[in-house]
Amino acid sequence: MNVDIGNALAEVASPGVSRSALERLDERVASAHERIERGRADHEHGYAALNLPETADVDAIRAATAEFDPETVLVVGIGGSALGAATLTAGLDTDADAHYLDNVDPEHVERLLAAVDLSETVVNVVSRSGTTTETLANFLVVREAMERAGVDWTERTLVTTGESGPLADLATAHDLPTLRVPEGVPGRFGVLSTVGLAPAALSGLDPEAVLSGARDVELRGSLFDCPAYAYGAVSHALSVRGADITAMMPYAERLETYAEWFAQLWAESLGKDGLGQTPARALGATDQHSQLQLYRAGPGNAMVTFVAPQDRPELTIPPAEADALSHLGGTDLGTVLDAELAATEASLAAAGRPSVRVEMPRVDAPSLGALLYEMEAACVLVGELAGVDTFVQPAVEWGKRATKGLLGEGTAESAAVAEKTELRVE
Amino acid sequence: MNVDIGNALAEVASPGVSRSALERLDERVASAHERIERGRADHEHGYAALNLPETADVDAIRAATAEFDPETVLVVGIGGSALGAATLTAGLDTDADAHYLDNVDPEHVERLLAAVDLSETVVNVVSRSGTTTETLANFLVVREAMERAGVDWTERTLVTTGESGPLADLATAHDLPTLRVPEGVPGRFGVLSTVGLAPAALSGLDPEAVLSGARDVELRGSLFDCPAYAYGAVSHALSVRGADITAMMPYAERLETYAEWFAQLWAESLGKDGLGQTPARALGATDQHSQLQLYRAGPGNAMVTFVAPQDRPELTIPPAEADALSHLGGTDLGTVLDAELAATEASLAAAGRPSVRVEMPRVDAPSLGALLYEMEAACVLVGELAGVDTFVQPAVEWGKRATKGLLGEGTAESAAVAEKTELRVE
Repeated sequence: MNVDIGNALAEVASPGVSRSALERLDERVASAHERIERGRADHEHGYAALNLPETADVDAIRAATAEFDPETVLVVGIGGSALGAATLTAGLDTDADAHYLDNVDPEHVERLLAAVDLSETVVNVVSRSGTTTETLANFLVVREAMERAGVDWTERTLVTTGESGPLADLATAHDLPTLRVPEGVPGRFGVLSTVGLAPAALSGLDPEAVLSGARDVELRGSLFDCPAYAYGAVSHALSVRGADITAMMPYAERLETYAEWFAQLWAESLGKDGLGQTPARALGATDQHSQLQLYRAGPGNAMVTFVAPQDRPELTIPPAEADALSHLGGTDLGTVLDAELAATEASLAAAGRPSVRVEMPRVDAPSLGALLYEMEAACVLVGELAGVDTFVQPAVEWGKRATKGLLGEGTAESAAVAEKTELRVE
Repeated sequence: MNVDIGNALAEVASPGVSRSALERLDERVASAHERIERGRADHEHGYAALNLPETADVDAIRAATAEFDPETVLVVGIGGSALGAATLTAGLDTDADAHYLDNVDPEHVERLLAAVDLSETVVNVVSRSGTTTETLANFLVVREAMERAGVDWTERTLVTTGESGPLADLATAHDLPTLRVPEGVPGRFGVLSTVGLAPAALSGLDPEAVLSGARDVELRGSLFDCPAYAYGAVSHALSVRGADITAMMPYAERLETYAEWFAQLWAESLGKDGLGQTPARALGATDQHSQLQLYRAGPGNAMVTFVAPQDRPELTIPPAEADALSHLGGTDLGTVLDAELAATEASLAAAGRPSVRVEMPRVDAPSLGALLYEMEAACVLVGELAGVDTFVQPAVEWGKRATKGLLGEGTAESAAVAEKTELRVE
């Protein structure tokens, strides 16, 4: 990706960062880069994710998926075990339809299972621990649905899990093809691993094409020389100056899921110790008609990131008879979308609201692979600058213990659920 | 809906509102209610939207849609001209598949038009002004696609527009069935009007079923006696105490689009004059694995709204052989989802983070109609309490003028686009 941080400068926007502040910040970027490179060299937990373009086991992914040729891919996983894969299958042209059982909504699960031909479906169950409640529950439901449909689930299930645990045991017991969630890679950093790439491969995508783009990314120790670090550094600088919200606004429908992926990456990595920048998922041009009023005239506590593909398929708007429609006739639809982006970007700048533009060549596998990798690197940089522990997520554990307690033998946390303070209005 | 504001109280959360502050705020709620009722009685711009349960022209909607029986409904509209309808068709069981061309992405438009049988498709073009760039561009593309497919577009196009304008002229010229966008109803408040209900009717839903739920809602002049006002008042109270972000988190997949609708309603109505509360679209249980870390341990500048259907379809998790999976066997999947909600709610309270619970009977037409109406009323109340002009959106105009200038004859705004401050990192 290329990045233009001009509209985040203090001379344009408030909050905004001055050029001299960027120079001073660059000294910290250099140190952070050294720390990151050291972490990568030592394959430290989390930093190891930035090695995935080199370490991802493409052979294992191909070996585990080559036997399958499904119409439908059903990924049973949640959070990092779904969003990276979904970003790839939504962002790129797949052969199969990929669906994600990433919630335990009975209405949704039932509807989805009824809508697909289970005999032409391959299931990828994804959970590092093998104990994720929602994933296990959904897997059991899917398995039974296949049995009821007279379909042998053991012939069409791929398991992606850690070295041990209930899913690993299940795979062993039934001789299922299995991929390992690599060590040292938190779920939200797993798109360029087996976790993201196996569903992509099952859907007909080439993992190598995605990784090749990521491999081309070179992280260099200056924000003026490294787009990923420019993005991270400016996001951090704006965040500490009051941009509590970061709206990720790709101008491409296919990148809508990318914005969801970004939201988990940013929120779960950086939201801790009372710090963090809240990601808002957005989409251009659609959200000009939903959020732009707030971005431009609201409290001024947000930065907007425009993601701009430089190349799009052509689609010419046909001519129209009426004068009011005729100015569009003959114009390429993508040109309209690009004009909307430029106009919205300028609109924010005119109102002194900060934004950053991220340019990608087009929405294809290498460009998407590079974008995802660079956003991960940006996130890791922000973690260094903000001084948080980027690669853990301790705050989610309380709720998990409460859920387990509510569904089984009570825990201290589930007891707290019963003590809820109520003030009902009916 | 019923509302439980217990976890928004100062005794539980920070920011949080004390019971005595709520009592004082209730005096302002009473005055605001009087203002709202007066606005409704006078059919004032914006306030008129709260009359829609009574004034929506169901007969006209039925008359305009009865002749159609499509497999696919294609809504060409953006913002308020799409999100309300999408909330209904995504939220409820439809006969036809409803798709929304609410963006000008050539890749997306092409893919969608290739995926549907145009001869079994009805198009609803929706724009009050009849001049919305994206909508007109998409309409011209759709029309040509139908012509190329040998399908008579004039036999399958419904126009929803204002009393005049290019779309009204088009409808007259080609004798197309036409519905009027009612006066005094801004787009984001239009779900219970022709704008939201016609696509729903085309898709096989009964507008009356939706409106009946909204009609049952009574707005009363105390937050302790009116769930809609309780929600609005507490949202405002938390907002001014630092909850800059409001995460709308329905625990039902079918309500994911409702959260998008809410985001436009809240952002575009209240985000002005340097004020506003940024909506974040969320989904339970999925976002426990994405955003919960931030909500629980981040900067503490957010409130979370849990939307809890009280009744769900049953789906029993089958028994499992392995011990680690067996605790789920025999449990209803919806019970798991409800447990996740209660656990997440308690998790936030245990960390002193504010939330509000909104209960709806189930996800059906009357319950959804009531929820949408009550959220609109809540939004209008917040506008009164915050002192903003709820029913306008002036900040979007600059960008529209810039877009028009870039696509045609230059405007002052489009000239500004060319003067962008650049700082590129490549």
